[in-house]
Amino acid sequence: MPLQPWKTLRTHLLLDRSPRLRVLADDVQLPDGQVVEGYLRVETSDYAVIIPTNDAGEVLFMRCYKRGVDAIDLQLPAGGIDPEESPLESAQRELREETGCQAVAWQNLGAYVVGGNLGINRVHIFLATGCRQTNEPTSGDLEEQELAWVSLQEARRWYRAGKVYRQVSTIAALGLAFAAMADGGQ
Amino acid sequence: MPLQPWKTLRTHLLLDRSPRLRVLADDVQLPDGQVVEGYLRVETSDYAVIIPTNDAGEVLFMRCYKRGVDAIDLQLPAGGIDPEESPLESAQRELREETGCQAVAWQNLGAYVVGGNLGINRVHIFLATGCRQTNEPTSGDLEEQELAWVSLQEARRWYRAGKVYRQVSTIAALGLAFAAMADGGQ
Repeated sequence: MPLQPWKTLRTHLLLDRSPRLRVLADDVQLPDGQVVEGYLRVETSDYAVIIPTNDAGEVLFMRCYKRGVDAIDLQLPAGGIDPEESPLESAQRELREETGCQAVAWQNLGAYVVGGNLGINRVHIFLATGCRQTNEPTSGDLEEQELAWVSLQEARRWYRAGKVYRQVSTIAALGLAFAAMADGGQ
Repeated sequence: MPLQPWKTLRTHLLLDRSPRLRVLADDVQLPDGQVVEGYLRVETSDYAVIIPTNDAGEVLFMRCYKRGVDAIDLQLPAGGIDPEESPLESAQRELREETGCQAVAWQNLGAYVVGGNLGINRVHIFLATGCRQTNEPTSGDLEEQELAWVSLQEARRWYRAGKVYRQVSTIAALGLAFAAMADGGQ
């Protein structure tokens, strides 16, 4: 018999801090008929992560305190997708607000679920090429931040070293971007 | 002034489903003195993801229904780290239980925070080489699963296609493994 999805029988709302966070418990039925009660699920906004690159072969990072890491981290521009936006529009807005940059071309590198069991949200990953800073950043984020252009060689070395980037979304996005740039002959 | 971390003033427990999930709200003070109340934080177990490879140049995947994706997904062996285990011990146990395999060598590819804002947990990524199936799987997981050895070339093609793997941890782990194997001359 082919693999079957689970069936949701009932959903209970455990915590509602919409639009920031909801926690739900589902009673689910497995393909063999077994019922599992209270399987937990977390919902928060999908977000976009951008790998901004320029014609000089550099990647733009932001250095800032990240609450989830509870440390200063070197991360890529990223932010939540507003309800009225497409993922690409969100990525373009975040790049503009957080870095003051505009890109010549955008490549969609896919959307991926963050929590295999809990769900949580999806991260949409975009490679932005030909980036140039045209404005000052105006993000209004709580985090103070510094911008840093880093050569692709250095960004790759740090990626392989496994200790510089602290967030799984940074690792996922950089790996896909390196592969896409290799495919594109860069 | 260099970038400063935030300071936690108070923590409120909003939901306690330990050991599976806790949701907390922190009152935090930013470096400029501003106080932000109720910054949300989610806590769940850290987990290990394994990229199992063999001497024939193949990667071992599991095809199973994943609740967080709400679909059948092609994923890597993975599982929560028990309190008494190291991340490596957990990875070795998960590989044995979920696939019946043992590896000749293990390479730690780093640990990464899943939620940049919410925290959530950390994923520890391990490359396992020289894998051979020595037993039947005995995971006891709720999910039915099928095992599939896939050539590295095919796994890389799917990675670049951006539509086959559905979880961000799979993307992060595969990208790091491809880079580590390229460094090792494989």
